[in-house]
Amino acid sequence: MAEIKKIVLAYSGGLDTSIIIPWLKEQYPGCEVIGICTNVGQEEDWEALKKKAIASGASKIYVEDIREELVRDFIFPMLRAGAVYEGKYMLGTSIARPLQAKKQVEVALKEGAEAVAHGCTGKGNDQVRFELTYKALAPQLEIIAPWRVWDIRSREQAIEYAQKNNIPIGNISKKNIYSRDWNIWHISHEGGPLEDLWNRPEEDMFMLSCSPKDAPDKETEISIDFDKGIPVALNGKKMGPVELLTELNRLGGENGIGRADVVETRVVGMKSRGVYETPGGTILYTALRDLEMITLDAETLALKRQLAAKYAELIYQGKWFTLQRESIDAFMEKAGKYLTGTVRVVLYKGNVIIAGRKSKYSLYIEDLASFGESSYDHADATGFIKLYGLSTGVSAMVQKELDAEGGPADEMKEMARFSKK
Amino acid sequence: MAEIKKIVLAYSGGLDTSIIIPWLKEQYPGCEVIGICTNVGQEEDWEALKKKAIASGASKIYVEDIREELVRDFIFPMLRAGAVYEGKYMLGTSIARPLQAKKQVEVALKEGAEAVAHGCTGKGNDQVRFELTYKALAPQLEIIAPWRVWDIRSREQAIEYAQKNNIPIGNISKKNIYSRDWNIWHISHEGGPLEDLWNRPEEDMFMLSCSPKDAPDKETEISIDFDKGIPVALNGKKMGPVELLTELNRLGGENGIGRADVVETRVVGMKSRGVYETPGGTILYTALRDLEMITLDAETLALKRQLAAKYAELIYQGKWFTLQRESIDAFMEKAGKYLTGTVRVVLYKGNVIIAGRKSKYSLYIEDLASFGESSYDHADATGFIKLYGLSTGVSAMVQKELDAEGGPADEMKEMARFSKK
Amino acid sequence: MAEIKKIVLAYSGGLDTSIIIPWLKEQYPGCEVIGICTNVGQEEDWEALKKKAIASGASKIYVEDIREELVRDFIFPMLRAGAVYEGKYMLGTSIARPLQAKKQVEVALKEGAEAVAHGCTGKGNDQVRFELTYKALAPQLEIIAPWRVWDIRSREQAIEYAQKNNIPIGNISKKNIYSRDWNIWHISHEGGPLEDLWNRPEEDMFMLSCSPKDAPDKETEISIDFDKGIPVALNGKKMGPVELLTELNRLGGENGIGRADVVETRVVGMKSRGVYETPGGTILYTALRDLEMITLDAETLALKRQLAAKYAELIYQGKWFTLQRESIDAFMEKAGKYLTGTVRVVLYKGNVIIAGRKSKYSLYIEDLASFGESSYDHADATGFIKLYGLSTGVSAMVQKELDAEGGPADEMKEMARFSKK
Amino acid sequence: MAEIKKIVLAYSGGLDTSIIIPWLKEQYPGCEVIGICTNVGQEEDWEALKKKAIASGASKIYVEDIREELVRDFIFPMLRAGAVYEGKYMLGTSIARPLQAKKQVEVALKEGAEAVAHGCTGKGNDQVRFELTYKALAPQLEIIAPWRVWDIRSREQAIEYAQKNNIPIGNISKKNIYSRDWNIWHISHEGGPLEDLWNRPEEDMFMLSCSPKDAPDKETEISIDFDKGIPVALNGKKMGPVELLTELNRLGGENGIGRADVVETRVVGMKSRGVYETPGGTILYTALRDLEMITLDAETLALKRQLAAKYAELIYQGKWFTLQRESIDAFMEKAGKYLTGTVRVVLYKGNVIIAGRKSKYSLYIEDLASFGESSYDHADATGFIKLYGLSTGVSAMVQKELDAEGGPADEMKEMARFSKK
Repeated sequence: MAEIKKIVLAYSGGLDTSIIIPWLKEQYPGCEVIGICTNVGQEEDWEALKKKAIASGASKIYVEDIREELVRDFIFPMLRAGAVYEGKYMLGTSIARPLQAKKQVEVALKEGAEAVAHGCTGKGNDQVRFELTYKALAPQLEIIAPWRVWDIRSREQAIEYAQKNNIPIGNISKKNIYSRDWNIWHISHEGGPLEDLWNRPEEDMFMLSCSPKDAPDKETEISIDFDKGIPVALNGKKMGPVELLTELNRLGGENGIGRADVVETRVVGMKSRGVYETPGGTILYTALRDLEMITLDAETLALKRQLAAKYAELIYQGKWFTLQRESIDAFMEKAGKYLTGTVRVVLYKGNVIIAGRKSKYSLYIEDLASFGESSYDHADATGFIKLYGLSTGVSAMVQKELDAEGGPADEMKEMARFSKK
Repeated sequence: MAEIKKIVLAYSGGLDTSIIIPWLKEQYPGCEVIGICTNVGQEEDWEALKKKAIASGASKIYVEDIREELVRDFIFPMLRAGAVYEGKYMLGTSIARPLQAKKQVEVALKEGAEAVAHGCTGKGNDQVRFELTYKALAPQLEIIAPWRVWDIRSREQAIEYAQKNNIPIGNISKKNIYSRDWNIWHISHEGGPLEDLWNRPEEDMFMLSCSPKDAPDKETEISIDFDKGIPVALNGKKMGPVELLTELNRLGGENGIGRADVVETRVVGMKSRGVYETPGGTILYTALRDLEMITLDAETLALKRQLAAKYAELIYQGKWFTLQRESIDAFMEKAGKYLTGTVRVVLYKGNVIIAGRKSKYSLYIEDLASFGESSYDHADATGFIKLYGLSTGVSAMVQKELDAEGGPADEMKEMARFSKK
Repeated sequence: MAEIKKIVLAYSGGLDTSIIIPWLKEQYPGCEVIGICTNVGQEEDWEALKKKAIASGASKIYVEDIREELVRDFIFPMLRAGAVYEGKYMLGTSIARPLQAKKQVEVALKEGAEAVAHGCTGKGNDQVRFELTYKALAPQLEIIAPWRVWDIRSREQAIEYAQKNNIPIGNISKKNIYSRDWNIWHISHEGGPLEDLWNRPEEDMFMLSCSPKDAPDKETEISIDFDKGIPVALNGKKMGPVELLTELNRLGGENGIGRADVVETRVVGMKSRGVYETPGGTILYTALRDLEMITLDAETLALKRQLAAKYAELIYQGKWFTLQRESIDAFMEKAGKYLTGTVRVVLYKGNVIIAGRKSKYSLYIEDLASFGESSYDHADATGFIKLYGLSTGVSAMVQKELDAEGGPADEMKEMARFSKK
Repeated sequence: MAEIKKIVLAYSGGLDTSIIIPWLKEQYPGCEVIGICTNVGQEEDWEALKKKAIASGASKIYVEDIREELVRDFIFPMLRAGAVYEGKYMLGTSIARPLQAKKQVEVALKEGAEAVAHGCTGKGNDQVRFELTYKALAPQLEIIAPWRVWDIRSREQAIEYAQKNNIPIGNISKKNIYSRDWNIWHISHEGGPLEDLWNRPEEDMFMLSCSPKDAPDKETEISIDFDKGIPVALNGKKMGPVELLTELNRLGGENGIGRADVVETRVVGMKSRGVYETPGGTILYTALRDLEMITLDAETLALKRQLAAKYAELIYQGKWFTLQRESIDAFMEKAGKYLTGTVRVVLYKGNVIIAGRKSKYSLYIEDLASFGESSYDHADATGFIKLYGLSTGVSAMVQKELDAEGGPADEMKEMARFSKK
C-alpha cells in the first residue's frame, strides 16, 4: 500500500464530516485533506460551508453544482424506468450517491490523491453506494471510512472530539433529532421517534410538504408532457429538468403530496425506517405510469415493470456503474420510445388524481373498445377462446383423477370427457 | 354433439341475460332454460329478479348467496398475494367470475344439462373467464355465447328484441350510460363518456365512494389485524370476512378512498378503460403491504411481489382453476405464514396513511437499526463491502479499455489497477 | 374489403403451396398469383422450382437468397441472447419465419398486391408467425390462409386436387412420411411414427447428422472466436456468418451433434413433438454459454438467462417485430459487449466438450481463486458473512415459535437467542 | 460472550480439520473438542477416521450415516425443482452442507456446546453455507472459523503444524493436487492445473466416470419411473432413493456421463473453476425435464423453470433454511403433482438420449397434434390469430412514424392503415 499523502473527502459541512478532517491528519501524519461538496438541491450557505471546511483543516474545498446532471442523467432515467425500491421508497438518496462519488473520484484523480474518504457510518447503505462507485471508477484508490475505524460512537462523542480539535460546531442543537438527507428529488428523515414503528411521524418533522390536512381545500389541475419517458413540459410550457422538477416540488409540497413512511431492508441486511418527502417525484411517477398504460402493449408493460423492480434494487444497492444497470437501461430506453404524450393531473390534499391522458402513440382505439357496433367481429372470439382455453380443457380431461383441492367436485370429474367440438 | 335439451344460464336480471332466455328457446327448440344468479354483494331485489327470470321464460331460477365463499376463498387469498393487474386494477370483477362459473357448472351437473350459457359480449374479458372455468371444471359441457352468435349488436336492438318477446324491461333507462359490475369487493364503470381518455369521470357516476372533496375534513384512525396475511379484526374486534369487508367499504367510501381510473389491456388484446371503486380493498391492500415490509426478508419480499404480478395476470385472464395459479398460491401461503400483526391506518379525504405497524414476527430490531451505540460491529461492514464489491472492482480492472458510456473517464482508466489491499 | 386482384404467396415448391395457386385463382376469379420462395439454406433445385410455380399457375416467381441476412440479423442475435424454447428447441423454424414473411411483404408492396397468402395449416405455429409479421409490417394487407378455409383435410385429398388441376406433383412419395422444415440453422421432423411419444426416432429419418454411434471414434478439437457475442472465426480463421455456420454444421453433423427430441407447446395451445437437428448451432450455443460464464458477473448473467427464456418465447410465438423483442435485444446487445474471446471445443460422438476458454475481459483472476497465499484477506469473509447472514439470524430469533416444517427442532428453538457477537 | 468450554467441529478426517483440533485447544485453553463426521456417500475407512480424530485430540467423534435423509429430503426436492446453478453446476456440494451443518448443530445442542467450528477457508462458499445454517438453526452458538483467523496459509504450513502437534498425517501426498468434495450425488475437483481455464482436465483426475472415449461402444437403454417429480423405480423395479441413485451413478459412470467443467461465481464474488462428475444426477435431471414437457402446460413450465434458477441460487448461497426456499418448494411441490410417468433413456458414450416417455397425465393428445383429419377445427385459428395479433396490428398502425430500426420500410409505412376486417 502506497503512502497516503493526499485524501479527497466527501464533505457535507455537517459535524460528521467536519471532524473527519483533523482525524485524517492525525492518522496519516503530513497528509493533505481536500474536501468536495456537491450542490444537489439542498438548502445551504455555500460560502459559510467553504469557510468551515478550511477552518476544520482542509487545504482546499471544491463546491460543485451538479443538479442539472443529477436530474438529467440519473433521476429522469430512473423515473423512465419506473424504479421504486420495495414498492415504496423513491430512491432519493440512493440515486444521488453514484454521481456524488463520481465527482469525488474526478477530483481525486485531478489532484493526484491516493485515497478517498467519506463520512458514512458502518450501518447504513451510503457507505456501500460510495465505495462501489469508487471501485467501479478508480479501483486503485484507497478507501477510508472513519466511522468504521475510530472509537467515536455517538453524537456526544463527536461533539467532544470537535471541541477538542477546535472544529466550529455551529448551530448543532438538540433539536436535530433526525438524520436527514436532502436533494432536489427528496428529503429523508430517520432516527429519533421514528425508531418506534408504532409512532406516527410528528407533523413538525416534515420540511418539503404540508400535511394533507393543511393543504388548500381546492383542486389544482396541471398537465405534464413527456417525450420518450422524460418529462419536458409543465402546463404546456417547456422546461429544463431542474426548473420542471423544482416547480413540481412546489406544487406537490403545497398540496400535501409525496410523503412515504417506509420500513425498508438495507443493503447490510437489517430493516430500517425512513420517512420520505418526494413531492414532485410522486406526481411525475404517477403520471408516467398512466401514460405507459396507453402506449405500451401488455407484454412489454409487464416486463418493464418487472425489470423496474430489479433496477430499483441496483440503485438502492449502489450498483449504478455496473453492466447490469447499463443493460437494463438499454432495455428501458428502447421500451420507452413511445412514452410520448400528455397527462392531466389533479392535485388535492395528498391525492394525485389522473384526470386525462393522450398520446399520438396511444394503443387505445375508441372504436375497438366501445360497446356499440364496430368492425371488430365478435365471432372471432369464439375461435380465440377455443385455442386460448385448449390446454385448460385438455388438462381437465387428463388430470381428472387427481385434482382434489381447488378443482372440480368428484361428480363433475366422473362426467368429464373432452368436448366434442 | 349431443342434442341440447337443458341449458343453465348465468342470469343477472339485466336486459342482456333476460333476452337470452327466449333466444335460446328459439335456437334449441324444446329446450329448457334454467337460470342461476349469484349474490356477490351487489344491491338487488332478489324476489323481483326471480319473477323476472320466470317471466322471461326460464323454467327455474337459482339464487345463491356466495359472498362468504367469495371473500374467504377467492378475494382474501388474492389480497394475501398482493395481486393488482397492471399495477392499478384490483381485479374486482375478475375474481368473482371463477366462483360464479363454478356455481353455474354445479347447477348444470346437478340438473343434467348439456350446455351452459352466459351473457358476455365477444369483446370483453368475462367471456374468457366464464369459459375457461367451464372448461376446467366440466369440459364436456357445450358452451353457448349468444352475443357472439346472434345479430343483436346494440342496446337498442336488444330492447327491441325484448319487447318483441314480451320480456319485462323494467327500469332500463337512458341514464344507465355506463356498463357496471358490482360485488362486495368493488364496482366497475365502463363506457359512455369514459371512452374518451381525456375525460375525467363525472362525479355522479360513482356509487360506493364520495369524492375526496366531499369527505369529512377530519382523520379517521383505524387498526386492522392480520393473521397469516388474512384480515381478521377491525379496531381490535374480530370479524368474519363479509362483515369486515363490508365495514371497511363503508369507512373507505365515506372518506373518498379507493377510486382508480385505469386503461388496461384486455385478454382479447385491446386497451379499454375502466373506473373502479374498491374502498375497503384499497385500505386492506395498503395495510398488508406495510405489514409485509416488516415481516418478510428482502429476498422473499421481492420474489413475492414479482409472483403477485403473475398471479394478477392469471386472475385477470380467467385462469383461476389452473395448476399455475394453485402453485403460486402454495408459494403465497408459505410466504405468508409470518404476515401476522396489526397496522394502524389513518383515512382522510382519499388518503390511506400508515400511522404505525407491529408484529410479533417483525424483523425490525430497534437496537440494530438505531444510530446510537449498539452491539452491531461497524467494522464488519469493511469486510462485507470488500466482498460485496469484489466483482465491481474486478470488472472495472478488466473492462477498462471498453467502457465508453456511463463509465469512468479515460484518464481514470489509464490509472486503473486493482487496489492492492 | 377491397377486391383482391393480386396475391403474393409464400411458395415452397411443395405440394401444399403448389395447389394453393389454382385454388386462389378459383376463389378470386381473375386474380393474379405471384410466388416468392426464399433460399434459407435448404437443398433445392431452384430452376425446377421456378418452372413448377409457373406450371402451377403463378404469373411470376421470386427467388431470394436471404441466408446472409438470416444468419447475421436473426440467428446470431438469437444466439447472443441464448434463446432456446422450453430449454430444448433451438428455434430453427421460428427464427426464419419473420424474415421470410418480411420478404413476402416487400414483394407484395412492390407489386401492389392486395393480399398475402401462405400454406400453413390451422394447427401449427407458422401461421401465427407469418400473420403476426404481416400485421406488424403491413396491417393493410388482406391475409389468406387456404388450409383454414378449404375442404382439403389430408395429403391424399391434396394430391387428388393437384391431379385434378394438372399441378405437377413430382417426387412426392409415400416415403415422405415426415413433415420437415430445413434451413441453414436446422432441419425439423414431425409426424409419422414420431406421433407416438414412446417411439424413438428411426435412424434413417435424420438428414444433417450421423448417429453418435456412426461418428468417428476420435476427438475433433476446434476453436471458436466470438466478438461481442457473435461468432467471427473458426480455428483462428475469420469467416462470414454463412461460411462459419455451414462449416460448423458439417463438423457437428459428422460428429453426431445437435439432435433434440422435443415435446413442445405450440402457440395454439397443444403439445406436439418435433425432432430437430441443429449441429452447428448446438456447438455455438454451448461455446458461447461458457464464454458468458467467465465474462459476465453473476447478476448480469442471471438476468440475461432469465430474459433469454422470454426472448425464446417471443421468437417461438412469432413476435419478432414487436417492441418487447426490440427492447430485450437492446438489453442483450449491451450485456453482450464483453462477450469477446475464444472457446476450445472438443467434438466427439454427440458430445460437445468445453476444453478451454479465454477472454481479455475474463473476470476470473487466477490469483484470487487459487488456494495458495494471495492478497485476498480471508478475514474479510468474517464481516461479510456476519452481514450476509444477518437477516437469517434475525429471522431465526423472531420466528422461533412458528417454524414447524423444514426448520430447527423444538429443542433448538427453546435455546435460541440471538448471538451476542 | 460466554466462555467456550465445548466445541463441536465438522470433522472430515483430512489434514485441514485434523489440525483444527489442537489449534482450538490452544486458543480456548481447557476446552473440549467433539468431532462429527457425516457419511454422505463418500468412500471412507470409518474406523480409521474415528481413531484419527481421537489421536488428534478430540474427546469424542460422532459418525452419522445421513445418506437416506440427504437424498430424500434435499437432493430429490432439488431435482424435482430442476435446480442447476448458472445453468451448469448441479449443486452437489451445496446441497449437502445444510444437512451436514444441521447434524452438527444437533450434536452441539445435545452436548451443550457453546460453539461450532468448521474447516472451510475464507475464500470459498462452504463457510457461508455452514454458517448460515448455524444462524438459522441455533443463532446463539458461537461460530469459529480457524482458516479465517490463524496464520496458516498453505498446505505446507498445515503439514508443518500437524507434525509439530503430532497429528497423524496419513497418506497425504503430493499427488493430491486437487481439492475435492465427494458425496452420493457428485464429486468435485478444484485447484491444481484447473486454475488455468485454458487447460482441459486431465483424464486421471476423474473418479466417478470414465471418459466417453473409454465407455463401451454400445447403447444401454434404461427406464426411470417418477412419482410427483421423485424418481421411484429403475427399469421397472421400485428402489429406495439411495439404492436408485447408487445404481444410476454406476450406469452413468460406466457410460461416461455427467462431467461438467464450470467457471462459476462464488458467493464471495469471485469466479472460480470446478469440474464436477454427477453421473446419476445428470441422467435423472435429463429424464425429468422431458417428463415435465409432456405433463406441464407451457405457462406453469415456464414459471417453474424461472423459479428453478432462483432455487439454485438459494442452495448455492447456503440459504436452504430460509422462508424463500420453503416458499419456492411449496410451489414446486404443487407444480410437481402431475410429474408422474416413465422415461426411456439411452446411455451411450457421454450421451443421455431420450428414447421415449409416457404419463397418465400427458397433455400430448395424439389426435390433436396429428396432421390428418381430426376434431380440431382449423377455422378456429382464424379468430385466434386475429385477437392474438390484435395489439401487433394496432401498434403497427399507431407507431408507423417512429419505427426506424427493425421495423417496416418507409414505403410500407406510408401505405399502412389498419386492416378493415
